[in-house]
Amino acid sequence: MRAETALSPVRLKMEAGHGQPDPSPALEQLYRGFEQELLVPLWTEIGDLMPLHPKTKATPHLWRWERLKALTEQAGRLVPVGRGGERRAIALANPSLGGKPYATPTLWAAIQYLMPGEDSPEHRHTQHAFRFVVEGEGVWTVVNGDAIRMSRGDFLPQSGWNWHAHHNAATAPMAWIDGLDIPFSYYTESQFFEFGRDKLSPAEMGTSERSRSERLWGHPGLRPVSQPDALPATPLLAYRWVDTDRALAEQLALEQEGQAVTLSPGHAAVRYTNPTSGRDVLPTIRTEMHRLRAGARTRTWREVGSSVFQVFDGRGTVQVGERSWSVARGDMFVVPSWVPFSAQAEGDAALDLFRFGDAPIFEALHAHRVQVDPA
Amino acid sequence: MRAETALSPVRLKMEAGHGQPDPSPALEQLYRGFEQELLVPLWTEIGDLMPLHPKTKATPHLWRWERLKALTEQAGRLVPVGRGGERRAIALANPSLGGKPYATPTLWAAIQYLMPGEDSPEHRHTQHAFRFVVEGEGVWTVVNGDAIRMSRGDFLPQSGWNWHAHHNAATAPMAWIDGLDIPFSYYTESQFFEFGRDKLSPAEMGTSERSRSERLWGHPGLRPVSQPDALPATPLLAYRWVDTDRALAEQLALEQEGQAVTLSPGHAAVRYTNPTSGRDVLPTIRTEMHRLRAGARTRTWREVGSSVFQVFDGRGTVQVGERSWSVARGDMFVVPSWVPFSAQAEGDAALDLFRFGDAPIFEALHAHRVQVDPA
Amino acid sequence: MRAETALSPVRLKMEAGHGQPDPSPALEQLYRGFEQELLVPLWTEIGDLMPLHPKTKATPHLWRWERLKALTEQAGRLVPVGRGGERRAIALANPSLGGKPYATPTLWAAIQYLMPGEDSPEHRHTQHAFRFVVEGEGVWTVVNGDAIRMSRGDFLPQSGWNWHAHHNAATAPMAWIDGLDIPFSYYTESQFFEFGRDKLSPAEMGTSERSRSERLWGHPGLRPVSQPDALPATPLLAYRWVDTDRALAEQLALEQEGQAVTLSPGHAAVRYTNPTSGRDVLPTIRTEMHRLRAGARTRTWREVGSSVFQVFDGRGTVQVGERSWSVARGDMFVVPSWVPFSAQAEGDAALDLFRFGDAPIFEALHAHRVQVDPA
Amino acid sequence: MRAETALSPVRLKMEAGHGQPDPSPALEQLYRGFEQELLVPLWTEIGDLMPLHPKTKATPHLWRWERLKALTEQAGRLVPVGRGGERRAIALANPSLGGKPYATPTLWAAIQYLMPGEDSPEHRHTQHAFRFVVEGEGVWTVVNGDAIRMSRGDFLPQSGWNWHAHHNAATAPMAWIDGLDIPFSYYTESQFFEFGRDKLSPAEMGTSERSRSERLWGHPGLRPVSQPDALPATPLLAYRWVDTDRALAEQLALEQEGQAVTLSPGHAAVRYTNPTSGRDVLPTIRTEMHRLRAGARTRTWREVGSSVFQVFDGRGTVQVGERSWSVARGDMFVVPSWVPFSAQAEGDAALDLFRFGDAPIFEALHAHRVQVDPA
Repeated sequence: MRAETALSPVRLKMEAGHGQPDPSPALEQLYRGFEQELLVPLWTEIGDLMPLHPKTKATPHLWRWERLKALTEQAGRLVPVGRGGERRAIALANPSLGGKPYATPTLWAAIQYLMPGEDSPEHRHTQHAFRFVVEGEGVWTVVNGDAIRMSRGDFLPQSGWNWHAHHNAATAPMAWIDGLDIPFSYYTESQFFEFGRDKLSPAEMGTSERSRSERLWGHPGLRPVSQPDALPATPLLAYRWVDTDRALAEQLALEQEGQAVTLSPGHAAVRYTNPTSGRDVLPTIRTEMHRLRAGARTRTWREVGSSVFQVFDGRGTVQVGERSWSVARGDMFVVPSWVPFSAQAEGDAALDLFRFGDAPIFEALHAHRVQVDPA
Repeated sequence: MRAETALSPVRLKMEAGHGQPDPSPALEQLYRGFEQELLVPLWTEIGDLMPLHPKTKATPHLWRWERLKALTEQAGRLVPVGRGGERRAIALANPSLGGKPYATPTLWAAIQYLMPGEDSPEHRHTQHAFRFVVEGEGVWTVVNGDAIRMSRGDFLPQSGWNWHAHHNAATAPMAWIDGLDIPFSYYTESQFFEFGRDKLSPAEMGTSERSRSERLWGHPGLRPVSQPDALPATPLLAYRWVDTDRALAEQLALEQEGQAVTLSPGHAAVRYTNPTSGRDVLPTIRTEMHRLRAGARTRTWREVGSSVFQVFDGRGTVQVGERSWSVARGDMFVVPSWVPFSAQAEGDAALDLFRFGDAPIFEALHAHRVQVDPA
Repeated sequence: MRAETALSPVRLKMEAGHGQPDPSPALEQLYRGFEQELLVPLWTEIGDLMPLHPKTKATPHLWRWERLKALTEQAGRLVPVGRGGERRAIALANPSLGGKPYATPTLWAAIQYLMPGEDSPEHRHTQHAFRFVVEGEGVWTVVNGDAIRMSRGDFLPQSGWNWHAHHNAATAPMAWIDGLDIPFSYYTESQFFEFGRDKLSPAEMGTSERSRSERLWGHPGLRPVSQPDALPATPLLAYRWVDTDRALAEQLALEQEGQAVTLSPGHAAVRYTNPTSGRDVLPTIRTEMHRLRAGARTRTWREVGSSVFQVFDGRGTVQVGERSWSVARGDMFVVPSWVPFSAQAEGDAALDLFRFGDAPIFEALHAHRVQVDPA
Repeated sequence: MRAETALSPVRLKMEAGHGQPDPSPALEQLYRGFEQELLVPLWTEIGDLMPLHPKTKATPHLWRWERLKALTEQAGRLVPVGRGGERRAIALANPSLGGKPYATPTLWAAIQYLMPGEDSPEHRHTQHAFRFVVEGEGVWTVVNGDAIRMSRGDFLPQSGWNWHAHHNAATAPMAWIDGLDIPFSYYTESQFFEFGRDKLSPAEMGTSERSRSERLWGHPGLRPVSQPDALPATPLLAYRWVDTDRALAEQLALEQEGQAVTLSPGHAAVRYTNPTSGRDVLPTIRTEMHRLRAGARTRTWREVGSSVFQVFDGRGTVQVGERSWSVARGDMFVVPSWVPFSAQAEGDAALDLFRFGDAPIFEALHAHRVQVDPA
């Protein structure tokens, strides 16, 4: 994270009433004229519209995994999955975003659930998506006919406009989380959607341990010469827990050996990247796994843009602005734009946090800022 | 504009009610559980959230210049300009965007107005801005101490986080339009703002015909070796009408000589660019001037993202989706995302249209699409 | 490889004598004037200087591994390794390049050899380098203090200006090949060199199976968040045979399953890439491993720029322009610029070819061309 | 120019003889074996091949304009111009580069000359080229059918693989200089060439003041929307002296007003750039015009890569390594790689220096270094 000097102290000139014209019947008439002509003056709105720094509409909030799971299982019994509804997915609705299914202004975060033998029908959309598995196994995501196994700790990016479906080949239900840029696409009015086939072929339903995508692209630093380069999104469709876990363990081991490879003492982190560019896996979504050694604490930082976290393993305390929670496996919480965040591992084990956020949008537009507590 | 194959016909599966579970007390209870836990299911929302193509919330709308001017002049008499309110700017509020001062979901378009001798106080913000002058002269925009003359047809880009103020050095009031990415910055919660000095120094109030910026950067294809390259926004702070007009006239003349340099017969267009990169002047806003030869007509096109137009000169008819208007100098209208647009010059003169839009956001994120009517 | 239309047939206008002025005493005097003033006319040189397509000065040539090894072993007995000579490296000298140690006009290819317990002293240079191990093990390359094990099939890129040394920790001698851009750097006069320490510390002499570099960067699609991105050369310092072999085997297996992932039937290939950019591991050198299924044949292709191949495994026939050789493990040969190349696997086993070339230079300068035989 | 810390002092370990094995009959036999097998050891060559910093083969050298002109005029009488010889161009042959027509290892610099009514026949090649006019007028360069007027001070870039010819429409002979990357293309064996038409059509022979290219692309900061963006080389085919002169004059005037816009006191410089990218006009050649105010002196600097200068106006002294010359209009000299350079204006007028060099090659390959004397 790029550190940045502190912003100048907030001056109070923008308070309500400051810089406003004196009330008068003529002013009143002017304002009515504005309304009739569909005009709004800047001087009455600037304090809200152009704050000194991001003042998020979103609220830090925590969803407990046990509650999410319980409701999801109920939905599994009551709600069929099929064409039209498309997915049995239940989205986090930030309490300050008007009841909309938005975890943050830009991000969608949902639990998806499939009963044994069920399928989610095939479709494609320009919204970028991923799946992350906090527990369970047995579902296969089928992307352009390539069946990808899903197991605990696996991360499956799914860039826009690729056909995809899901199939539960196991004898138990399975839940996982979906992350998408639905609110951003919706707000910016840039999305497209198409329906695909209603049924997968048996061959697509998943039997091989490794998908074609992994077999072609999952070799460190090696790319097939036959394939195009510099793709806008990753062609690698599964990032396996065994690799992520090892990468984090190695970072902490290297730190112990004196290497400067962690973000701060005891805080390892890896970013999922597009092997054809080294950049984020998706054009609009950054995804990372963080590990805090037992007892370690992150620095406090804040950045432009919002994130959603899910506790993958361990226990800890997280602080988001004024809120603080004890968290455990599966719990999900949001960190809105420019709200300070820190986390601490508790107990004898490491704390693993999966995180996704909208930073690539701001980096692409030269609008990203990060402030890291130097301590 | 990059053409694109037609989208597949809209299928009706996403209509209300399709794919929904049957009502039951248990379902009702499940939905109440969702509400309590701040969750929203996808299957009830997907039709709105993930449409087959962008379904804009914005409405095509036209604002007449004479009405804008009349109200602005009233505001000049009634509303002082100074710290707190910051600017005497009056924004177009799209009738379908809830009374907010948003021309489109991402773009701010306003008329700003200064009385003789007035100053707008100095500030800076991360929102990107520009000024465009449809008539009048005499105001100077002062950017980081560099005074820039404003006259009819001039375009002044103003990228984020630069100090700026305005000063009317003339004996008459002056109006111009401001374009900014305020709604986008506000929605994505990425903006910063700082107040500057309350008074400009006399030396900054503008006397020289050409600003320092123009003297340093305004030479075609030449860059000062001492200055940094690949800047995210343009260092050239004024694009003069004499250049824009000549560029458009030359395109039409070259077309007459048989060169394939126009967008379609009789339709010339230039884009304002950053000379250090050849890209758009601002990271989030595209700005262009279009000229239709007398009697000519544009192709019909639609694209992801929204635009605001102002008629700079001439008369014509514009078609935006289902709406059609006769337009003349100063009139402003919006073209929402994915709504087809065309224009036709009427009378004996060319029709000049200034246009700004949010295309750079979508290009940076690999989400831009354009569909051009082949005819 | 990007296919390209055939060049137009060679016209004969550039033959010697064509377009030359008639001899005369005055012309003779003019030519003497040119010489005195250090001038050379284009019209006498153009046929050589500006040919219709690259006419390489280099010759296709093959070096047999057994002969290289025999001489290298002799050198091991007679030539000490130490400061000043720096390395016991013996370079391929293309027979048409004037006795210089250049495999091609731009590329250096050498065998390096260390006796048990020997060290190559530490130095650094801006020339980019790599090591490739066709047989043996026991030497460690130490890059900025990070000890990297070398074993058969391993590829160790070594970008410019990093400190490096070699240490043979085994009880047997070991040979490997070095590839560098020495001729290119020399010709373009862009190289720097510095001496480092004369002795490594015991801790650097290599004991761990995996280097720090591999532990930090060797996880597919995962990057440490703490490290810089978009590096000009790879931070991953070893690409292990186990990965390369698996990647090639998977390509051939996928081809058998009907996927279009090979360059042509039976011809798999991987490129070594920089995980921070997805581009070549070194700014000036492309490196690849090719595998031909038993009996398979590559297409014939030619490209701008030169390559050096080493047979890693198997037997085959290679055709380089007019020359054809039967090749086996360790044999090295050069393919000069724009000379057609093809290879065929012979016997019951696959043919593995390691290849390095200068294509990144031409790609960076927009000067790369490839012509692939469509058959 | 990016400053850089001084290199560490040159150590003497690389002197001849250091680090060499003791002579012996066995060693002698080994060396004969190397020769037979076309091998060269590193240890005997490293001092030359891998110097501590670039040790150029080229010599600083000066060619006087009056001598160049005199010989060129003689050639005009004796040597016809036509197909086969292609151009009446006479190249600077650096005295240390073996009599080859290379000004530096990578750059070609020549005077070209056309008698009244003469044509140089059309051809195209992948070598990048430009024309610069130190005096005279009346010739038109025709690029893909677009006739471009040439007058004193004009700079005409000509990127690879475009058809071009020259026609002298005046009643007097005309000379100008050509710069190309012929030596680089030749050495790297990457060039292609094709013959075009033997005769231009009358319409191409040049009458309009401004070429189509200028009319389409020569407007500061404005680009035609219909044309492709991010071209590898400039689409603007003439950079006129009136613009260059004004840009330099403005830099010096701004300096007088206290702005930090010059390279050092009294030293203004502009670089010719590609308006579609803001980068150098040609992928391999950087071109600049420098102006030293009367009496001013440049800093001393050296950089990786070589340059050729031509005095455009004024008088001065230039220092290139150990050599120093008084120079005047038209004189040309070379600055080899890593050789320190400085210049001083003499007399009452400014000194204008046109410069071209190979820096883009090194920047593209991350191999550029510049050292500027801080004084």
